[in-house]
Amino acid sequence: MKLRFYNAKILTMENESIIEGELCTDGGKIAYVGAERASGGYDREIDLGGDLIIPGFKNAHTHSAMTFLRSLADDLPLNDWLYKEVFPREAKLTEEAVYTYAQLANMEYLTSGITSSFDMYMKLPAYVKACTDMGYRSVLCGSINDFGGTVEGIEEEFNTYNDCGELISYQLGFHAEYTTKRETLEGLAALSQKLKAPLYAHNSETKAEVEGCKERYGITPTQLFDKLGMFEYGGGGFHCVWFDELDMEIFAEKGLWAVTNPASNLKLASGIAPICEMRRHGMKNFAIGTDGAASNNCLDMFREMFLVAGLQKVREEDAAACPAFEVFEMATKGGALAMGLTDCDVLKEGKRADFAVIDLKQPNMQPLHNIAKNLVYSGSKQNVSMTVVNGRILYENGEFPTVDTEKIYADANMLTSLFEL
Amino acid sequence: MKLRFYNAKILTMENESIIEGELCTDGGKIAYVGAERASGGYDREIDLGGDLIIPGFKNAHTHSAMTFLRSLADDLPLNDWLYKEVFPREAKLTEEAVYTYAQLANMEYLTSGITSSFDMYMKLPAYVKACTDMGYRSVLCGSINDFGGTVEGIEEEFNTYNDCGELISYQLGFHAEYTTKRETLEGLAALSQKLKAPLYAHNSETKAEVEGCKERYGITPTQLFDKLGMFEYGGGGFHCVWFDELDMEIFAEKGLWAVTNPASNLKLASGIAPICEMRRHGMKNFAIGTDGAASNNCLDMFREMFLVAGLQKVREEDAAACPAFEVFEMATKGGALAMGLTDCDVLKEGKRADFAVIDLKQPNMQPLHNIAKNLVYSGSKQNVSMTVVNGRILYENGEFPTVDTEKIYADANMLTSLFEL
Repeated sequence: MKLRFYNAKILTMENESIIEGELCTDGGKIAYVGAERASGGYDREIDLGGDLIIPGFKNAHTHSAMTFLRSLADDLPLNDWLYKEVFPREAKLTEEAVYTYAQLANMEYLTSGITSSFDMYMKLPAYVKACTDMGYRSVLCGSINDFGGTVEGIEEEFNTYNDCGELISYQLGFHAEYTTKRETLEGLAALSQKLKAPLYAHNSETKAEVEGCKERYGITPTQLFDKLGMFEYGGGGFHCVWFDELDMEIFAEKGLWAVTNPASNLKLASGIAPICEMRRHGMKNFAIGTDGAASNNCLDMFREMFLVAGLQKVREEDAAACPAFEVFEMATKGGALAMGLTDCDVLKEGKRADFAVIDLKQPNMQPLHNIAKNLVYSGSKQNVSMTVVNGRILYENGEFPTVDTEKIYADANMLTSLFEL
Repeated sequence: MKLRFYNAKILTMENESIIEGELCTDGGKIAYVGAERASGGYDREIDLGGDLIIPGFKNAHTHSAMTFLRSLADDLPLNDWLYKEVFPREAKLTEEAVYTYAQLANMEYLTSGITSSFDMYMKLPAYVKACTDMGYRSVLCGSINDFGGTVEGIEEEFNTYNDCGELISYQLGFHAEYTTKRETLEGLAALSQKLKAPLYAHNSETKAEVEGCKERYGITPTQLFDKLGMFEYGGGGFHCVWFDELDMEIFAEKGLWAVTNPASNLKLASGIAPICEMRRHGMKNFAIGTDGAASNNCLDMFREMFLVAGLQKVREEDAAACPAFEVFEMATKGGALAMGLTDCDVLKEGKRADFAVIDLKQPNMQPLHNIAKNLVYSGSKQNVSMTVVNGRILYENGEFPTVDTEKIYADANMLTSLFEL
């Protein structure tokens, strides 16, 4: 399939400039980005009427199938939410439910211009089928902890899911320090070194998590993971709210990725990640995630981008802190590199054809003083007119051509009876 | 014009329950809300297919025409932004520009289900024409300060704009303590008492504002306004970020409205308003505003609602703080009452026909565990399929039937040349 999107503005993210011209695909890849050329020889040619193409957003931390819990148990203290509402219901999840709720989540990502997710959850075969059936790209993240999984199992998953088609890949990961015993952490460090692969986990999401780790080990989770040799081949942490200076220096020195989840951190009262302070300590690698719908509850990169910028400004007491383009870079290029999607970072010949079309003819995008600022400070799902993954249009003007949406909505409501407590 | 919206879910806001049935209008008013009746006798009957009708959101603090500054001067320290970028450009505003940028703002409100605004700005005749030409409801707020306006002028505006048609009304107001000399404040207090009318102003938006007032008067802005007799007939404050306990007690005792503007307060690094603490001190009257597009930059009640809840949870370190329905009430009923729109607060026979239709058949609204939580935590402009003001459809499936959108976008970009410095 060869597609041509012409009469377009294109923010390639190779730099800050916006070019005018066209983007063409050939199969799953970008075949051309540049000034307009001749028509003809394409399966479909789409006149964008001056609208904007951006690299797809990368959702660098989520638990997609948790859409089954959306709005079911909010406004509760954190521990009641987790132990009384989330865990007992998760125990009832079936393969069919993971398939349905993952497709529901992927649909929502597409409405927000998100073209891939770094997903940490359970029942991977059902999840992988949900993504591949609809053509959505995902990077699976290992989620071993004391309640499930073994280091050998993680190695097997690594081999299986890094060899099951161009839409799926896999990174080593575990849930978190507070749910995983030392022996397992050591086994994971050895596996990371054996496979020369980066390693990821929830890290310092709450103050209580860091205090617990200090009681158990005398040091923070980051310092523990580093001491155990987990970061010899890179990797990163999800949330990273409660970092101390030494944590920041370790992340800076090892080039690790801090994935921030601001909406989830507000809604669960976890805190505000110190992104600007991290940059002052030399950290350069940042990405953004929505977290799961149970905690967020919205899977929307526009809301996350505004929050990243706005929360840093108020935390730093400086309206100049965390400028818009920096945040847009985190949400696109940063996310891709954090997840190991090195061919999904910018729009350029030979890169994967993962991108979104932004409708600029909407009141919130006008006037066109500065498009990147409009996107970060004023953008909304309403502006996403099309989302393309691996050269295939998965979302166009409110429709999902690769999904039976009526069935997904019906199943998503019908299956809720599974989870009654 | 008589309209019938049937096969609907309706959140009337008379209480928390959602009824199934229909809503009918007759002219600018609601003629019926209840179970389905017979078809026939209407100018148009619309099958909502199970979608949801909610009272229109009320934007209880904004400066609509400031869309001319959107994304023009962000990421700057507050004083540079205000004195080097905003004020010099505002001095160049024309009537034509206010008309265009106000219509642009009103269009954006409609995409977010907002049916009326409490607007504080300049060049009122052009603004009023922008609203009435397109059928949008607005409550003007006086904005006198040391740089423009007189107490006599405010009285004249009060009489003029409370008698110019059913879409427009006017409340007494002034900019803020730090821009308005004592003599004027005293004159406004006397005018409020003479007219038996509430009085509104920016209040305690920044820490510096409160400190400045204490240097000048030895007390906070709220205490000063109260001492001057400004609150004998009610009213309220915009922002209300830096309130002390006595301020809260004054607002509670006098039943004043605190209008919170969370996105603006983040983006300009002003702080986080202590809504939960205010409630603990007996305050009950809250509403939500977007502020102007120069500071926000997005005119979207969904983003504001999530921020109100999320920021209170993180401020209180309690995920149970500020539950969703409370926030939804602030954004609808609260806003209406704060602005004096006592016939726009709930959906009920005889009330004004100001409402929005929410498309529930979108991934972010599924499953339907709890619709109010879905709206507050997961809702987006993308969900607004229709917005009705005074019985007239002003927004439907992305179109604005009462506005020449192409002209507004063209003018909004063309007129930017006026403001070059």
